[in-house]
Amino acid sequence: MNIDGVQVQSIWYDKDRDTVKIIDQTRLPHDFEILSLDSLADAYHAITSMQVRGAPLIGVTAAYGVYLALRDDAGQLSEAVSYLLATRPTAVNLQWALDRMQTSLQGVAAGEISAKALEVAQLMEKEDIAICEAIGEQGVDVLTELWRQKADPKAVLNVLTHCNAGSLATVDWGTALAVVYKTAASGIPIHVWVDETRPRNQGSALTCWELDQQGIPHTLVVDSAGGFLMQQGKVDVCVVGSDRTTATGDVCNKIGTYLKALAAKDNGIPFYVALPVSSIDFSLTDGASEIPIEERAVEEVTHIDGIDESGAIKTVRVVAGGVAISNYGFDITPARLVSGIITERGVCAANREELEKLIQVATA
Amino acid sequence: MNIDGVQVQSIWYDKDRDTVKIIDQTRLPHDFEILSLDSLADAYHAITSMQVRGAPLIGVTAAYGVYLALRDDAGQLSEAVSYLLATRPTAVNLQWALDRMQTSLQGVAAGEISAKALEVAQLMEKEDIAICEAIGEQGVDVLTELWRQKADPKAVLNVLTHCNAGSLATVDWGTALAVVYKTAASGIPIHVWVDETRPRNQGSALTCWELDQQGIPHTLVVDSAGGFLMQQGKVDVCVVGSDRTTATGDVCNKIGTYLKALAAKDNGIPFYVALPVSSIDFSLTDGASEIPIEERAVEEVTHIDGIDESGAIKTVRVVAGGVAISNYGFDITPARLVSGIITERGVCAANREELEKLIQVATA
Repeated sequence: MNIDGVQVQSIWYDKDRDTVKIIDQTRLPHDFEILSLDSLADAYHAITSMQVRGAPLIGVTAAYGVYLALRDDAGQLSEAVSYLLATRPTAVNLQWALDRMQTSLQGVAAGEISAKALEVAQLMEKEDIAICEAIGEQGVDVLTELWRQKADPKAVLNVLTHCNAGSLATVDWGTALAVVYKTAASGIPIHVWVDETRPRNQGSALTCWELDQQGIPHTLVVDSAGGFLMQQGKVDVCVVGSDRTTATGDVCNKIGTYLKALAAKDNGIPFYVALPVSSIDFSLTDGASEIPIEERAVEEVTHIDGIDESGAIKTVRVVAGGVAISNYGFDITPARLVSGIITERGVCAANREELEKLIQVATA
Repeated sequence: MNIDGVQVQSIWYDKDRDTVKIIDQTRLPHDFEILSLDSLADAYHAITSMQVRGAPLIGVTAAYGVYLALRDDAGQLSEAVSYLLATRPTAVNLQWALDRMQTSLQGVAAGEISAKALEVAQLMEKEDIAICEAIGEQGVDVLTELWRQKADPKAVLNVLTHCNAGSLATVDWGTALAVVYKTAASGIPIHVWVDETRPRNQGSALTCWELDQQGIPHTLVVDSAGGFLMQQGKVDVCVVGSDRTTATGDVCNKIGTYLKALAAKDNGIPFYVALPVSSIDFSLTDGASEIPIEERAVEEVTHIDGIDESGAIKTVRVVAGGVAISNYGFDITPARLVSGIITERGVCAANREELEKLIQVATA
């Protein structure tokens, strides 16, 4: 992504210093800070504290975490994998990335294992960029067709998105926002409605920030607003990401996604999910009962960071002490509410037959 | 309502000091402060700054505002009414209350008009309490029947509510929460899921506060969570209030209500709206096109009040400068998503025939 005119990724390997660099996403939009991950513990902390988040980015970070672990101790492959696997339960990319590291490193000699781990992690980083760029390209026709239906060359296509499924959720490009970026680059005028995405405000903090950096017009709304916007004809299409999608097309994504999908259905608005094939979990068939939904700390709801009148970042408590809080991180959008799934291998309907066909074509 | 063991209303007339007292709702839950309204300007400010909010409470505050205006200048009835009418466009109770004041004061001599205005405002205050208590009583059978269907004497009935339709939205008792209070008082174990209700957080700031004061178990969730809770079988019924309801049963309420109604429908969960008959606008038949939806200041989204580490109330900016924001206050829940309307005159289906029958019975 382009940050103040400079090309930056959400994560990269700094060869000169033998360290892994990330954008600290807990500081955005107020501060843009680059952090170094220098150990397994740093990688673990980056994922659990959400300095990095987004299913694909978590996967790549975990892969680098394995490298950092093996660099320090060539014998701790399985310990490192177990340790990193415990960071976040819902996104399947984490497991996918760690499985891949483990398979690639099986039987590699102790003297070579960390070099090999670095090689695989770097490959996964590069692949993620290519996959996300391909997702974006696959989605261009979908949005272009919806824009054509407006039958007005001056019309702006209004896209609603939830949370951040952008460059910051991946190494670069994003999933849902890759579709936006590629479509905008093809000349279609786009405006994005950005859901705030409580409690961590990834929409206002991350999506608005990166859309601004890429020069895409956008408007922030609270999470409750999307239904009204759709009732008023102000949304042409919803595009979101996914942390895990079942073989039958049920989509697990940031909590609140399901509500937007219901509103889209009720108003005849297409609802697309953009995701890498690695986030499809072919072992699952029923999202609502099978995907573990992470319950996160109540402090995410009770406290919020902001800028005070002196310009300093300040944490304030917005909820009275003693209030009971429930803070689930994700919900399930049933396949019946999904108009289509946009992957790096093509766009398909949200059902087992179509999803399997997509995989077969690519692996044939 | 009971506040720290003392019976308090959201608004009352203080005879000794000839002033109108209100709870300053912009300070809750961090501070409990009583304010005096001593002029038309004070009443106007109390409504626009949302020191008082909630359709019924706005109506009574406006009535007292007319009294304060006429006490200072007996000739400014129509000016005061126009001035107050401009405070909030969506809730119909405001117009209803001001119409009633104007009708009651038509032709009253200048020397008697302020005394008469006070008398009518006090009557409306008392009536509002009685109406809300009756709404609560009318709703007891609805919730009791749903609790019975759980077929377990130890079962807790899980009610989800959005925004604040409680004592603080009325003079006392509330609308949706009156149903909760009366049902709990009848011995049914109740737990309330409270939507945070961005951007002003009336759920976390007001509903949690008053439920805590009344000893009703409750859990705060972000606005995006309700759909997931329903998917997981954790909600038995939704009960919300309304700022304006059409003759055909379309319900205008705090933005986000529509999304919860969609999720309730999708999960087979009853969705009730509790409201005084005064908030039904029999002149309207299509909520989505006819009810004016208030667009509020962007600062409600960009800034938030909280308690800093020193215990002081601090305002922080949570959104980066320059982000475009849209801040609509209400949405429309179509009648087809409403299981029933609970009024002081009875419970009925959300359609013209039933709503008209309700009025006819009462006025017969």
